[in-house]
Amino acid sequence: MIVVMSPEATESQIDGVVKKIKEYGCDANISRGVERTIIGAIGDERSIDQELIDALPGVEQSMHIVKPYKIVAREWHKENSVIDIKGIKLGGNTIQVIGGPCSVETQQQMDESAKFVKAAGCRLMRGGAFKPRTSPYSFQGKGVEGLEMFRKAADAQGLPIVTELMDVRMLDTFLEWDVDVIQIGTRNMQNFDLLKEVGHTNKPVILKRGMSATVSEWLMAAEYIAAGGNHNIIFCERGVRSFETYYRNMLDVTAIPVLKKETHLPVIVDPSHAGGKAWMVPALSRAAIAAGADGLLVEMHPKPCEAWCDADQALNPDELKSLMIELKGIAQVLGRDI
Amino acid sequence: MIVVMSPEATESQIDGVVKKIKEYGCDANISRGVERTIIGAIGDERSIDQELIDALPGVEQSMHIVKPYKIVAREWHKENSVIDIKGIKLGGNTIQVIGGPCSVETQQQMDESAKFVKAAGCRLMRGGAFKPRTSPYSFQGKGVEGLEMFRKAADAQGLPIVTELMDVRMLDTFLEWDVDVIQIGTRNMQNFDLLKEVGHTNKPVILKRGMSATVSEWLMAAEYIAAGGNHNIIFCERGVRSFETYYRNMLDVTAIPVLKKETHLPVIVDPSHAGGKAWMVPALSRAAIAAGADGLLVEMHPKPCEAWCDADQALNPDELKSLMIELKGIAQVLGRDI
Amino acid sequence: MIVVMSPEATESQIDGVVKKIKEYGCDANISRGVERTIIGAIGDERSIDQELIDALPGVEQSMHIVKPYKIVAREWHKENSVIDIKGIKLGGNTIQVIGGPCSVETQQQMDESAKFVKAAGCRLMRGGAFKPRTSPYSFQGKGVEGLEMFRKAADAQGLPIVTELMDVRMLDTFLEWDVDVIQIGTRNMQNFDLLKEVGHTNKPVILKRGMSATVSEWLMAAEYIAAGGNHNIIFCERGVRSFETYYRNMLDVTAIPVLKKETHLPVIVDPSHAGGKAWMVPALSRAAIAAGADGLLVEMHPKPCEAWCDADQALNPDELKSLMIELKGIAQVLGRDI
Amino acid sequence: MIVVMSPEATESQIDGVVKKIKEYGCDANISRGVERTIIGAIGDERSIDQELIDALPGVEQSMHIVKPYKIVAREWHKENSVIDIKGIKLGGNTIQVIGGPCSVETQQQMDESAKFVKAAGCRLMRGGAFKPRTSPYSFQGKGVEGLEMFRKAADAQGLPIVTELMDVRMLDTFLEWDVDVIQIGTRNMQNFDLLKEVGHTNKPVILKRGMSATVSEWLMAAEYIAAGGNHNIIFCERGVRSFETYYRNMLDVTAIPVLKKETHLPVIVDPSHAGGKAWMVPALSRAAIAAGADGLLVEMHPKPCEAWCDADQALNPDELKSLMIELKGIAQVLGRDI
Repeated sequence: MIVVMSPEATESQIDGVVKKIKEYGCDANISRGVERTIIGAIGDERSIDQELIDALPGVEQSMHIVKPYKIVAREWHKENSVIDIKGIKLGGNTIQVIGGPCSVETQQQMDESAKFVKAAGCRLMRGGAFKPRTSPYSFQGKGVEGLEMFRKAADAQGLPIVTELMDVRMLDTFLEWDVDVIQIGTRNMQNFDLLKEVGHTNKPVILKRGMSATVSEWLMAAEYIAAGGNHNIIFCERGVRSFETYYRNMLDVTAIPVLKKETHLPVIVDPSHAGGKAWMVPALSRAAIAAGADGLLVEMHPKPCEAWCDADQALNPDELKSLMIELKGIAQVLGRDI
Repeated sequence: MIVVMSPEATESQIDGVVKKIKEYGCDANISRGVERTIIGAIGDERSIDQELIDALPGVEQSMHIVKPYKIVAREWHKENSVIDIKGIKLGGNTIQVIGGPCSVETQQQMDESAKFVKAAGCRLMRGGAFKPRTSPYSFQGKGVEGLEMFRKAADAQGLPIVTELMDVRMLDTFLEWDVDVIQIGTRNMQNFDLLKEVGHTNKPVILKRGMSATVSEWLMAAEYIAAGGNHNIIFCERGVRSFETYYRNMLDVTAIPVLKKETHLPVIVDPSHAGGKAWMVPALSRAAIAAGADGLLVEMHPKPCEAWCDADQALNPDELKSLMIELKGIAQVLGRDI
Repeated sequence: MIVVMSPEATESQIDGVVKKIKEYGCDANISRGVERTIIGAIGDERSIDQELIDALPGVEQSMHIVKPYKIVAREWHKENSVIDIKGIKLGGNTIQVIGGPCSVETQQQMDESAKFVKAAGCRLMRGGAFKPRTSPYSFQGKGVEGLEMFRKAADAQGLPIVTELMDVRMLDTFLEWDVDVIQIGTRNMQNFDLLKEVGHTNKPVILKRGMSATVSEWLMAAEYIAAGGNHNIIFCERGVRSFETYYRNMLDVTAIPVLKKETHLPVIVDPSHAGGKAWMVPALSRAAIAAGADGLLVEMHPKPCEAWCDADQALNPDELKSLMIELKGIAQVLGRDI
Repeated sequence: MIVVMSPEATESQIDGVVKKIKEYGCDANISRGVERTIIGAIGDERSIDQELIDALPGVEQSMHIVKPYKIVAREWHKENSVIDIKGIKLGGNTIQVIGGPCSVETQQQMDESAKFVKAAGCRLMRGGAFKPRTSPYSFQGKGVEGLEMFRKAADAQGLPIVTELMDVRMLDTFLEWDVDVIQIGTRNMQNFDLLKEVGHTNKPVILKRGMSATVSEWLMAAEYIAAGGNHNIIFCERGVRSFETYYRNMLDVTAIPVLKKETHLPVIVDPSHAGGKAWMVPALSRAAIAAGADGLLVEMHPKPCEAWCDADQALNPDELKSLMIELKGIAQVLGRDI
């Protein structure tokens, strides 16, 4: 950590900072410049509480030099981590497209969806039984009954399932129904108690980026899961909040190469929630794969116009199929397959 | 609801929209303009699922005409709601400043804090026993033991207590310790299960704005609480995420008059988390009161340099006292007291 | 235009709005709903000043139904426009990568750059003679002398040149040196006098998106140029301002399909200024082409470590060459060439 | 400047950085930590080009320690600067409210406005003769004829005038009409050629903040003016772009105390363009003054419903008068007058 003292800082204020750094078990290196005195903390700076240093008299600012994340950081684990989901590998050379409807509605809808998802070449299926809705008056999902329908439909096609956990009290139910991948939604990225609990399971977790989370906060949220012992974490970029009103969220495509540099864990993209319109999905999906994503989470619906939520962003079965073909081409250019 | 058809929309697509609107129990009014045909839904448009309309063929865009919130809306409840917290009124003519440390640390720290808070003229006290921290390796709060210390210290001064609930499983403990005001933090503004549960109590709830929540989403989050039966809701603006890096969050002072127009519920401001630096707190506090806020949530610490978290944003007891005097002056200009 | 009256609006206020709409030469359609009265303006709503309507008593809000842009809109010009730059076509099936250094530095640097740009397969060259720099104390570009060096180096390789015009008073000089494509930088996207002047030339114009311009504002800025008679406009997405601090700007990849839908004009991407780091450029370039961009504006430098500005974002000649090969692969998947 | 080397940096890469730092005339201090080697540049770090350092092999990141602004910085000029506008002082103990219409429309409108502005107690008048409009089809201002009307109306009341300069070629005309304060609008905050030219005059300049400019960029834009010799600069916060759609811009009230700390120059606020609605203006105006602003730029119109632009944000004469009374009360609480 580097501590920059204000130009008016006194010698005794400088001593105060040095003393505090030493209390944290670090050494201090003082460098007296022309306009500022700078104090460097030498040792494990992660043990130093930056806010406490900033509050000391005479301090102008301080900066961490090392990254605050550890288990999830590529710095400490150079190889890509490949997550095994009932034999399906995510994070390796093969790109995985996870398809399925926004919400579980009926058994028939799920059965048809599963068939189409499989037929398009996807190896994993998504679907929401518990839905985070802005309004308390909107459809909130079919709940446990939905899990049952989903399990049945996906099993018939041999597809592992991905579904969102919103309430920590439902975790046991998720484990009972053997949900294959637990999704943590954007609104819960910093629901720390939920992160801690899924960190105590060994289920793969898709951690969606918070609405306006920085890459660093996102990595730290993953660190919460990892610190509990569960390293099966998949990052999912789904667009962030911006000033633009034409579309729902701004897909942060730059986050893909950035995450691939900062972490060894897989990175996927949800192009459906990003744009919010089905017609944007193919372009965003191609961009995500071209930028290096390890997979996609794509909404489809057997009959989009009859979907119970997010109807406007679901692909129909034919659109999903065509998209898969384009993506295969791009994957090959990058030396990957799909 | 207004549905704008695309210029190429066919008659049968227009009929499709009209049919769907009627399925929702509304009537449809068709207006054929020069460049676009527009369909108006007449009736209770809250029953119409906008995403489903947007997904219909030929639809260019649709717009809600009425606000989606109901119980919390001033449109349906013209008078200001005044929340009663053990006899202290929030939302009336008297402005309430809720002071206290970021975290509960020790009994002595809480005892001293309570004394200083009381001496400065505050009638309510804040303090965190469960702390949402970006890093899993940071101090996470004293937990239940902290609630006990807080209760004891505040009771000695006759101050009702405000503290943050992060985990829905801790609600019973909060009720046991008779927490007077439950705070929902910024990261949990859309933790819908948590909102539903506090909606089933009758405890006053401070609902902090999400990091990048729109005013409309924030009102809808409150609607979740209200829909459960608990109308004792206090909005707390605490700064939003922005591109500016000089300070932590951008205090959205405009949200104050906007909320006072849209809702009958009280609105307070947290100037400490907004700016993130103690030296910014007085200016932001004055601005908040001048803009019409009903109260403040201000961090103070008996010895800021020794605080265990957010040290840099806490006022010391003298600073809190001086601030209260300035705020009283501004309150009087607005015909209020403090 | 749709005008929503507030619930308390009186009949005379409704009449007032109708009267005003008629003054603008439009007809009015009144629809009385359960909670709101809505007035639709029928006719050319572009002639109505929305702010004036919003200011009328009893008006709650108003909404435009048609897009405010006209010449640049695909609605009125279905085919893609292809811009001809000295025989090089931009906006057609062939993707154009415009390479070159951030700044013109020396004749030798430009000569080498031109050679490498040509060798990599680019058909157009970029380079800045006038540099917009945040600090008045930073290198401001070589000016006219730089134009001369650039012209000479590019002519030797038969490459048309792209360079930024910042000051309206330099336009004649640009025309004298026969700059082939005039670039309007992000800080000048709404420098309306500059837009008007380039609108009176027939030179192709690259219009970079403003730091936080919406797609609609950007299209309207282009409309300024088009309204002057110059329809040779190329949109360039270069990242927008966001809360993320890991990289310089957030590349808005969604803007690519959105613009391709809204306008018939070509859309290119500047991946270098977006990320701000050379190592991000290949991923962002691939994403841009995969999302449907018609070209790229890529910074390269014969020796990046010695560049005079933006050194950190320039590719070296080998990196540019490898990138071109990857991009060719992606272009082919999309049925295009490069 | 602090340069953090990556963990894999070699000795020769470290030497390379040290050599480069010395080329800039600085000394280098090497500090070898457990995880990173850090190099501090000692001397005038403003002379070092950060981007060039970042591009050197082995560099992970670099950080400036001193602020890049100099003439405008309070660090080098502790006292508040007071700007003299024909005898009216701005930046001292007296708060100045600059009132007037958005646009100059007719002589009568300006005459009435001037009378009402004066009657309300304002000592300076604003009005736009050249209007930056998003659409080329909107009213663009009365131009030079408008300057003449404005001059005449204001002179009759003895009010110095404030008006916006958009085009560098109009500067001489502004000087001819003896415009008392030149306003640089938000879209031109980084129109560097315009800034340089007004920097060569001695006219007071109101520099509005760019739509999404950081405080640091804003100070650097002022530094452009100051570097030309003109130190009569007034910062004007007018709201920044955000994700919120309820109002036009988000007034950044925190920027007021931040600027007062970073610069000795006066800071005013434009509450009209921030909120975009007249009913928000009083609350935002009070907040601005309470936060420490030295003045306001407030839109008024003798008959808002007939204004030619921004009608919806103008106060009528009575509203302006009432606002002035409230502001006087707040000013007094802060020991100032108005």
